[in-house]
Amino acid sequence: MDFTLDQRLINSSHLIVRIDDIQIRLVDDSRYVWLLLVPEHNGAEELHDLADVMRGRLVDLATRLGEWMKTSFAADKINIAAIGNLVPQLHLHVVARRRGDAAWPAPIWGHGDPVPLTETDRQRLISTIAEFLQQGNR
Amino acid sequence: MDFTLDQRLINSSHLIVRIDDIQIRLVDDSRYVWLLLVPEHNGAEELHDLADVMRGRLVDLATRLGEWMKTSFAADKINIAAIGNLVPQLHLHVVARRRGDAAWPAPIWGHGDPVPLTETDRQRLISTIAEFLQQGNR
Repeated sequence: MDFTLDQRLINSSHLIVRIDDIQIRLVDDSRYVWLLLVPEHNGAEELHDLADVMRGRLVDLATRLGEWMKTSFAADKINIAAIGNLVPQLHLHVVARRRGDAAWPAPIWGHGDPVPLTETDRQRLISTIAEFLQQGNR
Repeated sequence: MDFTLDQRLINSSHLIVRIDDIQIRLVDDSRYVWLLLVPEHNGAEELHDLADVMRGRLVDLATRLGEWMKTSFAADKINIAAIGNLVPQLHLHVVARRRGDAAWPAPIWGHGDPVPLTETDRQRLISTIAEFLQQGNR
């Protein structure tokens, strides 16, 4: 069965690339470098709803992205979270945080309104992240 | 070298049990069933600071606890997160969320002040969680 992405995730983020049945998406918010990792598994809402292999891939990908983002975007902290109180479809946030960013030191969720990326910035970020993922993809 | 736990984690939570060099701790806040998983690895601040085996154990433990907590505490959603903007020592939150809880649907971090558990509730929760972990421990 085809995977159906929640409409709220479609509206708030842009697909960068798909790897191993995981969508890597850029959230349209210039306040942070903020990615969503969405395993293409209809009905999954919790990490425990995934098979071990898929969960391993998802966490490995988040970890690898977090490590790279910390350096590439000069982040002070990486935040990785599966929350989903509003959008239950399983999605993992990977966010590069900097001291002094719009929400620091609070978590970003529910903090103010998104500030959309310019088209230039969006394209640049998508290219940079896709290039990293395609280089590193096993 | 002995592991040194951050004083803020000591002050805000109670050790339930240690498994495979991971401390499982109960946050002293009766508003939620809220656990912290702390790998005993001095200097680790990010998931990518852990060796693959230790990160695998940590995520497996969080997943197993989340699955059990969802049923045992009649939760609507499990939140699992590595944030650490205030306390950088690596710790993973595993939280049983219910519709209508003190922060719902917002994340719990930075939301109001903790409401300490009574000693009875604390002991009961610690026993229940320790029993689950000791049964399931490989």
